[in-house]
Amino acid sequence: MSMPYLTPSIRLRKTPFSNRVDRAGAKAYTVYNHMLLASYYETPEEDYRHLKSAVQVWDVAVERQVEVKGPDALRLVQMTTPRDMSRMQDDQCCYIPMVDVAGKMMNDPVAVRLSQDRYWLSLADSDMLLYCKGLAAGAGLDVEVFEPDVSPLAIQGPKADELVSRVFGEDIVSTRFFRHKTINFQGQDMIIARSGWSHQGGFELYLDGSQYGEAVWDALFEAGRDLDVRAGCPNLIERIEAGLLSFGSDITMDHTPFEAGLGKYCNLDRAVGFLGHAALSALTEPSKQIRALEVDGSAVPAINHPWPLHNASGDPAGYISSSTWSPDFNTNVTIAMVNREQWDAGTVLTAKVPGGDRTATVREKFWI
Amino acid sequence: MSMPYLTPSIRLRKTPFSNRVDRAGAKAYTVYNHMLLASYYETPEEDYRHLKSAVQVWDVAVERQVEVKGPDALRLVQMTTPRDMSRMQDDQCCYIPMVDVAGKMMNDPVAVRLSQDRYWLSLADSDMLLYCKGLAAGAGLDVEVFEPDVSPLAIQGPKADELVSRVFGEDIVSTRFFRHKTINFQGQDMIIARSGWSHQGGFELYLDGSQYGEAVWDALFEAGRDLDVRAGCPNLIERIEAGLLSFGSDITMDHTPFEAGLGKYCNLDRAVGFLGHAALSALTEPSKQIRALEVDGSAVPAINHPWPLHNASGDPAGYISSSTWSPDFNTNVTIAMVNREQWDAGTVLTAKVPGGDRTATVREKFWI
Repeated sequence: MSMPYLTPSIRLRKTPFSNRVDRAGAKAYTVYNHMLLASYYETPEEDYRHLKSAVQVWDVAVERQVEVKGPDALRLVQMTTPRDMSRMQDDQCCYIPMVDVAGKMMNDPVAVRLSQDRYWLSLADSDMLLYCKGLAAGAGLDVEVFEPDVSPLAIQGPKADELVSRVFGEDIVSTRFFRHKTINFQGQDMIIARSGWSHQGGFELYLDGSQYGEAVWDALFEAGRDLDVRAGCPNLIERIEAGLLSFGSDITMDHTPFEAGLGKYCNLDRAVGFLGHAALSALTEPSKQIRALEVDGSAVPAINHPWPLHNASGDPAGYISSSTWSPDFNTNVTIAMVNREQWDAGTVLTAKVPGGDRTATVREKFWI
Repeated sequence: MSMPYLTPSIRLRKTPFSNRVDRAGAKAYTVYNHMLLASYYETPEEDYRHLKSAVQVWDVAVERQVEVKGPDALRLVQMTTPRDMSRMQDDQCCYIPMVDVAGKMMNDPVAVRLSQDRYWLSLADSDMLLYCKGLAAGAGLDVEVFEPDVSPLAIQGPKADELVSRVFGEDIVSTRFFRHKTINFQGQDMIIARSGWSHQGGFELYLDGSQYGEAVWDALFEAGRDLDVRAGCPNLIERIEAGLLSFGSDITMDHTPFEAGLGKYCNLDRAVGFLGHAALSALTEPSKQIRALEVDGSAVPAINHPWPLHNASGDPAGYISSSTWSPDFNTNVTIAMVNREQWDAGTVLTAKVPGGDRTATVREKFWI
């Protein structure tokens, strides 16, 4: 079952950019938030080379937005996260673990503050719209919760600044990391943030109105021809090298933010009103945690189920959740959930990889 | 983009039966509740012929369960649905529209009552676990909400009674429609209901413990060899003929249950505590509604976006959401959302099908 076919259905939603993605030659897809997401165009390796050297336009409309708007907007968002939301500024984006009353992860979106009373949650792969609706209804909050017609388009790579400058104006280049500015496209205001799911730098445009999708896409490709702009998508190799965690793969609803290595985003002393406060306060010392793990030998196969890790005595030590061959580091780069006893850098483990056991070594940090 | 590849990922969860499904030769998949669901084995047409004449075993673990358990369990479930839950019996299953405070659909599961204080919601494709968690947290309900390790396996087709009788005992055949009984498999109690997402009759076993998955599968195939038992899955042709609606395709979060044709499941006078009561009470007269619609001409292509419907004057009349050629009815069978002015049986419309306009006729009922 290495590369099965995906049956078309209108339940698997298209995006405002889908026709362009198809025309650009997406070769395979995944499904994310009930929507189609390309997984590569040329090959994962060729896409990776290009991402690291030029600029790509990514249809990441799958990062669906939950808009939370009204007098209780801040209160609702703070109920869902241990990150302190109280000092966020109106042009700010914050990566937030969203955590339930038991202290377990439900999503890890970027929260975008539009005003004190208005937020977008730019989601990973779970229907947090429903959690927010349930919470608002249950607690009787004075807030609207809905999915706006907003679809992120990422511009990523070392030439992203140049491309964005040409299309949206030089002023945009001064945007700081995880801050946003407003641009105007064909009369429509939209925000653009310096952010994105790669380590190569770039922006995410929050397309405000599906009807502008193809025009924005075309403007970027027209202006970027001499920059070798290409269609791209989140790249498996690059994101593992950079330690960008995938909710649903590396982090699941069974994990606490501390297990996910997101302790630095937990301000338990200041996140007043966070519903998981009591539970999470008792879980700050995890017994397992995300680690970068290097796996020896030739390129590992594609991963579609967790690969167990064992210690020298043959006892369970955790599992690998994301894995691929890295051309630049000439090794298998993986993300693993490793037990406390084995998580120190330099610990050597055995990975149960299809095709045979491999030696695996816990690293201090991710690769880039 | 008719049949793209689906990239493997551990985020797309496997089921307790996935290895058997793969071995049985599933040719294409979809993604449903973050899990893999086969979409056909031989061809959709061959699967359909076989489903109508023999018996199939379907991996429908994608119908993830939300378990709601505790003193406020009934209260929570009733908050989410306009269907009266108060008279449900302990061996009963109920198809329930789940509706938000604005009167819009969020899911249409089968609710399974295990006891007065314990329910499973056997979900369509949205994370209602999160809505229920949010509601419980927001309203401070005395209830546990979680996803149990329960994975439905459907046995469908005219020979389903015979097969189930052989494997789980003759007593199971006396189970009434949408009622459940308890069986014991290798020492583990599990419930089995007379239900399933086809019109051919059969059962859904709620596999209670992933570790029993392959053994149950194998027992069914061993016992059913002379019945020509085969692996199957919800069949597009058969489910459209039978008018089985697909949440996310035919029904979306933009629709009320009345638009979805689910008015008979709305007991607004008796569903005390349903949070959408006020909103839905004002929406009982929809301006559009689900209809069976026959489309003339040769077999239509696969549908991956809504096909617009126009009336004789060229004005919008709605859209087609599900569509396929029916060998048994020798026509294109479709499900459409049709405007009130055009929804009477016999109304002739124009369907904007890729490849050219088609004549389409509203029917009184679905085909079977």
